[in-house]
Amino acid sequence: MPQSTDKKKKLREICRQAARVFYEKSYDGASMQDIAQAVGLTKAGLYHHVGSKDRLLYEIMNYGMDLLDETVLQKMKDIQDPREKLRRTIIGHIQLIVHTWDYETTVILHENRSLTGPLRKKINVRKKEYIQYLESLITEVQKQAGGKPLISPSVATFALLGIINWLYQWYRPEGLIKLDDLAATYADFFFRGLLGVNQQ
Amino acid sequence: MPQSTDKKKKLREICRQAARVFYEKSYDGASMQDIAQAVGLTKAGLYHHVGSKDRLLYEIMNYGMDLLDETVLQKMKDIQDPREKLRRTIIGHIQLIVHTWDYETTVILHENRSLTGPLRKKINVRKKEYIQYLESLITEVQKQAGGKPLISPSVATFALLGIINWLYQWYRPEGLIKLDDLAATYADFFFRGLLGVNQQ
Repeated sequence: MPQSTDKKKKLREICRQAARVFYEKSYDGASMQDIAQAVGLTKAGLYHHVGSKDRLLYEIMNYGMDLLDETVLQKMKDIQDPREKLRRTIIGHIQLIVHTWDYETTVILHENRSLTGPLRKKINVRKKEYIQYLESLITEVQKQAGGKPLISPSVATFALLGIINWLYQWYRPEGLIKLDDLAATYADFFFRGLLGVNQQ
Repeated sequence: MPQSTDKKKKLREICRQAARVFYEKSYDGASMQDIAQAVGLTKAGLYHHVGSKDRLLYEIMNYGMDLLDETVLQKMKDIQDPREKLRRTIIGHIQLIVHTWDYETTVILHENRSLTGPLRKKINVRKKEYIQYLESLITEVQKQAGGKPLISPSVATFALLGIINWLYQWYRPEGLIKLDDLAATYADFFFRGLLGVNQQ
């Protein structure tokens, strides 16, 4: 339905603008007035679209998880080989973090404590699903490689998420290191850490 | 001088309490009144000790870097072997992050944008010194191992910092994974990623 697509499009535009405002002023520091102004809506208009500030934060995080789904995970569905699938997931996630650079991601990473109750639970369910996807993929890769696993899939998953989610702190795509090289370097690094160099 | 030691002790106590308040309410969400109350000082008394809210944030970050220096880096000075030195630095840093769990670290990681001008520069100099320490240590380890480096020391350093600084997001020392095991697992994982399994 075109109306619902329009509504979704508008919500995403609000999310992008609001994420930028939250990024600049922090969630507590930004008012709904600041956000309305950034989006070009009245405050009443903004409330009409998002319900509340809490809800808006949730929508931004949800939008970030949608982006991960749409631009990375959907494309992995047809890949059979677990190693290839994991490698492409790592590279896709890195590219996503760098492309949506700074706004949605920073808010998602830093404002989790600002969300409360059911909304926090809902977003944590989506995050957990992604963590479980990585864990099972890592488990499959370890099985395929054979031998005794060198690290637990869960601890390896969090190492991977740490490496990727830390990127926004230091990496600038306009700098000397090309994004494609960086993504490949980190995928290789992770596989060595996971399996050891001989099994790569 | 005992007076200056007392002053430092008081400042550190303020830092610890204030870090907790900033953690709970965020830097923008917490008032100096909230912090004064947590420390058991009047607002005027708090300003006397720390000068300004900005300065207080700086002092907390500086305290975090002091802890890294005092509890980890000072102990590394007499270690000659670069691999042993890097391994013990990784383990020490992980233990520090988990022990000062949640307060100072969270503030240091998340509120960097709240600091402005010269104070931001000053703390970034200290962070950069630590990054450079890790980079040269990693370079030495690579040289000692011989062969063509598999990853640039700088990119490897940020992978390591990502792994360690992500811990506060998921690791709970009271859970199933023992801290000593986790620290050793991550040190091994990092060395495999850096050098490949055969050179470990």
